[in-house]
Amino acid sequence: MNGNRFGRLFQLTTYGESHGDAMGVTVSGVPAGVELDEEAIQAQLDRRKPGQSMITTSRGEPDEVVVNSGVQDGYTTGTPIGMVIQNKDARSGKYEPYVTAPRPSHGDYTYSAKFGTRNWGGGGRSSARETVNWVAAGAVAEQVLDASDHDVEIKAHVNRIGDVEADPVSFEQLLANSEENDVRCADPDAAAEMQELIEEYQEKGDSIGGSIYFECRGVPRGLGAPRFDGFPSRLGQAMFSIPATTGVEFGLGKDAVDVTGSERNEDWTFDDGESFDHVESEEGDPVPEGNDHGGLQGGITTGEPIYGEATWHAPTSIPKKQRSADWETGEEKEIQVVGRHDPVLPPRAVPVVEAMLYCTVLDFMLLAGRINPDRVDGNPGQYDTEYHPSSPENE
Amino acid sequence: MNGNRFGRLFQLTTYGESHGDAMGVTVSGVPAGVELDEEAIQAQLDRRKPGQSMITTSRGEPDEVVVNSGVQDGYTTGTPIGMVIQNKDARSGKYEPYVTAPRPSHGDYTYSAKFGTRNWGGGGRSSARETVNWVAAGAVAEQVLDASDHDVEIKAHVNRIGDVEADPVSFEQLLANSEENDVRCADPDAAAEMQELIEEYQEKGDSIGGSIYFECRGVPRGLGAPRFDGFPSRLGQAMFSIPATTGVEFGLGKDAVDVTGSERNEDWTFDDGESFDHVESEEGDPVPEGNDHGGLQGGITTGEPIYGEATWHAPTSIPKKQRSADWETGEEKEIQVVGRHDPVLPPRAVPVVEAMLYCTVLDFMLLAGRINPDRVDGNPGQYDTEYHPSSPENE
Amino acid sequence: MNGNRFGRLFQLTTYGESHGDAMGVTVSGVPAGVELDEEAIQAQLDRRKPGQSMITTSRGEPDEVVVNSGVQDGYTTGTPIGMVIQNKDARSGKYEPYVTAPRPSHGDYTYSAKFGTRNWGGGGRSSARETVNWVAAGAVAEQVLDASDHDVEIKAHVNRIGDVEADPVSFEQLLANSEENDVRCADPDAAAEMQELIEEYQEKGDSIGGSIYFECRGVPRGLGAPRFDGFPSRLGQAMFSIPATTGVEFGLGKDAVDVTGSERNEDWTFDDGESFDHVESEEGDPVPEGNDHGGLQGGITTGEPIYGEATWHAPTSIPKKQRSADWETGEEKEIQVVGRHDPVLPPRAVPVVEAMLYCTVLDFMLLAGRINPDRVDGNPGQYDTEYHPSSPENE
Amino acid sequence: MNGNRFGRLFQLTTYGESHGDAMGVTVSGVPAGVELDEEAIQAQLDRRKPGQSMITTSRGEPDEVVVNSGVQDGYTTGTPIGMVIQNKDARSGKYEPYVTAPRPSHGDYTYSAKFGTRNWGGGGRSSARETVNWVAAGAVAEQVLDASDHDVEIKAHVNRIGDVEADPVSFEQLLANSEENDVRCADPDAAAEMQELIEEYQEKGDSIGGSIYFECRGVPRGLGAPRFDGFPSRLGQAMFSIPATTGVEFGLGKDAVDVTGSERNEDWTFDDGESFDHVESEEGDPVPEGNDHGGLQGGITTGEPIYGEATWHAPTSIPKKQRSADWETGEEKEIQVVGRHDPVLPPRAVPVVEAMLYCTVLDFMLLAGRINPDRVDGNPGQYDTEYHPSSPENE
Repeated sequence: MNGNRFGRLFQLTTYGESHGDAMGVTVSGVPAGVELDEEAIQAQLDRRKPGQSMITTSRGEPDEVVVNSGVQDGYTTGTPIGMVIQNKDARSGKYEPYVTAPRPSHGDYTYSAKFGTRNWGGGGRSSARETVNWVAAGAVAEQVLDASDHDVEIKAHVNRIGDVEADPVSFEQLLANSEENDVRCADPDAAAEMQELIEEYQEKGDSIGGSIYFECRGVPRGLGAPRFDGFPSRLGQAMFSIPATTGVEFGLGKDAVDVTGSERNEDWTFDDGESFDHVESEEGDPVPEGNDHGGLQGGITTGEPIYGEATWHAPTSIPKKQRSADWETGEEKEIQVVGRHDPVLPPRAVPVVEAMLYCTVLDFMLLAGRINPDRVDGNPGQYDTEYHPSSPENE
Repeated sequence: MNGNRFGRLFQLTTYGESHGDAMGVTVSGVPAGVELDEEAIQAQLDRRKPGQSMITTSRGEPDEVVVNSGVQDGYTTGTPIGMVIQNKDARSGKYEPYVTAPRPSHGDYTYSAKFGTRNWGGGGRSSARETVNWVAAGAVAEQVLDASDHDVEIKAHVNRIGDVEADPVSFEQLLANSEENDVRCADPDAAAEMQELIEEYQEKGDSIGGSIYFECRGVPRGLGAPRFDGFPSRLGQAMFSIPATTGVEFGLGKDAVDVTGSERNEDWTFDDGESFDHVESEEGDPVPEGNDHGGLQGGITTGEPIYGEATWHAPTSIPKKQRSADWETGEEKEIQVVGRHDPVLPPRAVPVVEAMLYCTVLDFMLLAGRINPDRVDGNPGQYDTEYHPSSPENE
Repeated sequence: MNGNRFGRLFQLTTYGESHGDAMGVTVSGVPAGVELDEEAIQAQLDRRKPGQSMITTSRGEPDEVVVNSGVQDGYTTGTPIGMVIQNKDARSGKYEPYVTAPRPSHGDYTYSAKFGTRNWGGGGRSSARETVNWVAAGAVAEQVLDASDHDVEIKAHVNRIGDVEADPVSFEQLLANSEENDVRCADPDAAAEMQELIEEYQEKGDSIGGSIYFECRGVPRGLGAPRFDGFPSRLGQAMFSIPATTGVEFGLGKDAVDVTGSERNEDWTFDDGESFDHVESEEGDPVPEGNDHGGLQGGITTGEPIYGEATWHAPTSIPKKQRSADWETGEEKEIQVVGRHDPVLPPRAVPVVEAMLYCTVLDFMLLAGRINPDRVDGNPGQYDTEYHPSSPENE
Repeated sequence: MNGNRFGRLFQLTTYGESHGDAMGVTVSGVPAGVELDEEAIQAQLDRRKPGQSMITTSRGEPDEVVVNSGVQDGYTTGTPIGMVIQNKDARSGKYEPYVTAPRPSHGDYTYSAKFGTRNWGGGGRSSARETVNWVAAGAVAEQVLDASDHDVEIKAHVNRIGDVEADPVSFEQLLANSEENDVRCADPDAAAEMQELIEEYQEKGDSIGGSIYFECRGVPRGLGAPRFDGFPSRLGQAMFSIPATTGVEFGLGKDAVDVTGSERNEDWTFDDGESFDHVESEEGDPVPEGNDHGGLQGGITTGEPIYGEATWHAPTSIPKKQRSADWETGEEKEIQVVGRHDPVLPPRAVPVVEAMLYCTVLDFMLLAGRINPDRVDGNPGQYDTEYHPSSPENE
């Protein structure tokens, strides 16, 4: 039970260390019949990839994904999809000083304390490099959702870096703007300020915290398995699995602390037939008159947009001089983390957050029978031939 | 997979509705050889119980726990412990108006949307009454931890109600003060203000949000199963399972958004032999020079105190008039929730938070082999007779 | 992970010891909307109950099931069903001699070796009494299947006791005859011989082995989750969980050892529209020309009847004098098991086998989306009111 | 939940199709500190590999395993071990005739019925090729067991092919003889007869069934998690997961049907200090006077050797002409399976059976705390440096 698995029916199982030979993810529970676009998976990996801008680490990883199984003639077969991403630009030598002298506030010490050893190059298994596996799995989940009868849309952006906060944005703005700048912030003015702030910290050899706002549209009502697998419970687990997360909120989040019941409670009315957000709602269905509840009531989706926020602490890898304690020599020593690192985490965490949302939403769709676990289109057992190639040339 | 299970090796499985016949919890993974104090379980239930003060609901539930299995002559046997708590004071009549007209911001609508039906009395399965099961299980977990070689201490208190915030408190103050007032706040002055504020909202027929601070001491280093079952991931799931939670934070939490890496990073030094918090640390072991990391690095415990905070929105059951939409008649209608309800959630949520922490910590202890899963004292397979009664009179 | 859970989506979690206060089972994953007939659950328990005939133990257990949750107005609500069966006729005194001197070939020694203790009355947790929980859960599974669009029929009978073997029987004979005699054998002549043989062993103070044949009709094709959760894998786990099982076979079973591929392989033809067994097969569908494969190919159901056999060793509780080794005194001693016991296991195991088949088949139906996990009739999220009582009088 | 996972704490997750790009297995739950011998893993794959003798398929797969993660400087790190085996000699063209015309008694039809498609080359996901993953994982499990304080030995051999049955063999004979002939039968005379029989069927273009006897020594007493995860339950699942298994037996197996309680029951005595089989037994411990129970009582190990048998039906791929039904054309057609196939399964299944036994035994050892899940040698949290290389040259 070393925690390398996420999901109930749609399930990812991962392996890999930052400077190991390769990262790998096995995706189980993908229904058959989904036309799998491997380039679209690659495109998601490219969004997460290091070296994509001046404000990310300069490690040069192509992050090319290889799909080993689960696909026939471009369509999923219902069997597990194994994917491998080779590590190409590992330079472990720089990590030599930290083998027995943990870097401040990294996982160096805790991994060694747990296992008596660790893969010490580049942070090993504790590295954010692991999330390349999640993004690959999330891209598969996204394609399954797209191939279904449902119209789920998921988007995240960076809403705060240090003391710079973005203005609230509409979902349309999220979609339109958040990939338009290196910070991945959908408020262009705030994005410019954030960029400046990040560069400032980068120059100082320091780093800074930040947060991400996420929103899911089109998630049907009735999803979630309370009490321990309610929608927020599983999303909480997912978000806190992303390295360096220190806070997760849904709906009003922490602001709810000072809001009264009468303010927050939302009266019920009837759908007038023009409601945009209730994907399954029809004219005459009961609908709440607001969405301070963030799309979740009693741990189950209401059909309203699900939204929330997560906070990341500043990256711990900073060029500034720091002090460690070398357990081999018994001496304290000055260290300087000279690797290639991100000055801020949220910009590259955006695709990771989206990936975990796709995985979680799809898992709940399968669990609630909204998407058939065996075949995305049509009933299992109703025999047909359409995905069968007629000749081996198609293979 | 309807979400009624929590934990990997120490596992609770629950059932029950607010106005059903009984609540029940099966606790699996309790090692043998723990002297089980049923009165101590009852004492924890009493802390959570309705009607314990003027600021809680007046529902009159004795919450008497009956242990059906897993214990012989007062000691656990390693087999599942089944517990049942009868519901005695269910008065469903008051809920009649809401059967087809959901109360604002409750789980009424979502449960009905998911299942096409629901147990509508008192909120049914979505009610916070379910947490009586968790507190019973947590009390078992606490006793297992107490019977082990480890010295784990867990305590929570209410650190904010509305705009009243408690001053930071030491762990000693937490232990000494938090049960001294009805609010369960370890800062007596803040507690008095909170009490006043709560009564004010109670009089207005309204409710208000709040938050809880929690801290775990003596949790050994090296616990956690990253990447998806890291300590914060599992705690995140646990905390978001508690009804009405809207935010969860660890360490600096949301404040980390504006803290630099150089401020937050903690240099390493060596234990000078007087360190209080590192339970397993010995003189000469590396220790971090602070605890902004909240006892967690890379998803694994450092041995430092684990602390964090969770936020609850205001209770949705308020006496004020509200509007619902009756899907049977197709008419909107005014409703007034006349049941017996809490004006604020955190005071009664304190024992629930503690219970989930006990369950989670114990689960990780078992997963890491720190407590033997078969027998809390001694090695399995090393045959001995001490728990065997010599005569049936002992039974 | 003490093994008290079975199933993926339809899941039973159990507790209880033979002479403990009560047995209990929590059934999760029951879709909403099933009219639950509690008397039918009771009727199944009565089939398994001790004292039902001269060839079973005379322990006088009424085995009355109490349903604590998950049902509203007679219909399931989609939430867990908690059931409790009190133990009424425990007489532990007789087991006093075995507290530290294990009975031959029971679980006395192994439970004590594992846990350092055990509930020693009546075999404690290792007793076949536990299967009362399984039969209750199986009765729920049966009702869910009955309420679905599918027409699944499951039946087992005793096909061998000692050297007496029943003739092969048709499924119709199975249904018609197997409950007509105390042995539960659908071949009346063999049943009479078996009865005689059992009484003979009973008189000698001895016991004898036997086997059960089981058959499932109407299980749709396409069920099973190979490679580790194939239909036979899960059934194998289920069958070997029944106490005293020493062998499990599917299709040709052990006889396949000496059958050639050309004999066993079954050519494919097309359904002529009159095929009885292929519930989902329509005219023109491919069908195999035989069923030596036992309804299972590649770990997945073909739609043909699933059949197999399981073997039980002779009950270990026999009145004959035997020798134990008392680890307290360090002395061997003569013992005589004077409790009330079955001279043969299969007759009472028939309802247990059927129960585990119902649970397994339903679980696979849910996993393959053949029955909606949220609501047995209709789509979740398509809001309707039919199960909602219009007044609390209905409650 | 497509069944690609086995184990609770020691867990394998697999992917791959017979003619896909690669097979892959992720092994989770390997404690840190095990010196991992990759050549020994390869040696096990070589035992399972096609083309190893005249009586196996001639497919030319090198089956070279690549370890992608979880190892540092030759030692396991406690993190998941990802392994990949490329498929090199896939010739799918031969399978073209069966794309829409299922081969008799294969998984062709059932996979297509379930998923509406399948990877049709070489049997796809239903192929026994999948077991290459299991053997790789089993080789890891074996090395973990070897690195522990325990002395577990596991061996299997072919004890029957068609009507040729081996004489009973001692464990020493099993170890000494079973790899000495192509049939993998420890009785040399029977082996020669079996070889002859197999060649006879091979010449006839036919195939034949067979069975395997397995035995585990040194498994400590007290392992197993009844009631649903008892040792036989989990082994039953494991054995029935191996393709073409039709029967599984433990101890007396099917022969128990006609054995009396007084014959089968084994009196208890005390260990005289010379007992070979009880690894943990000391002089004076209670021991049973025989092993008809097959090392298992109440679903838990007694410390005696665990033994049993499994039966495989004849391979379904035979060169003889057979008839299929083509669902595309609606016509029956004659087919001839011209691939490269095994005339009998048990010889190559021997390493697979052993692998699943290693995995299962190790999993139970971890679950019972007999091997620490974090570190195979020493206590987690007791910090030391021995596995840390002192320089990056060691990397």
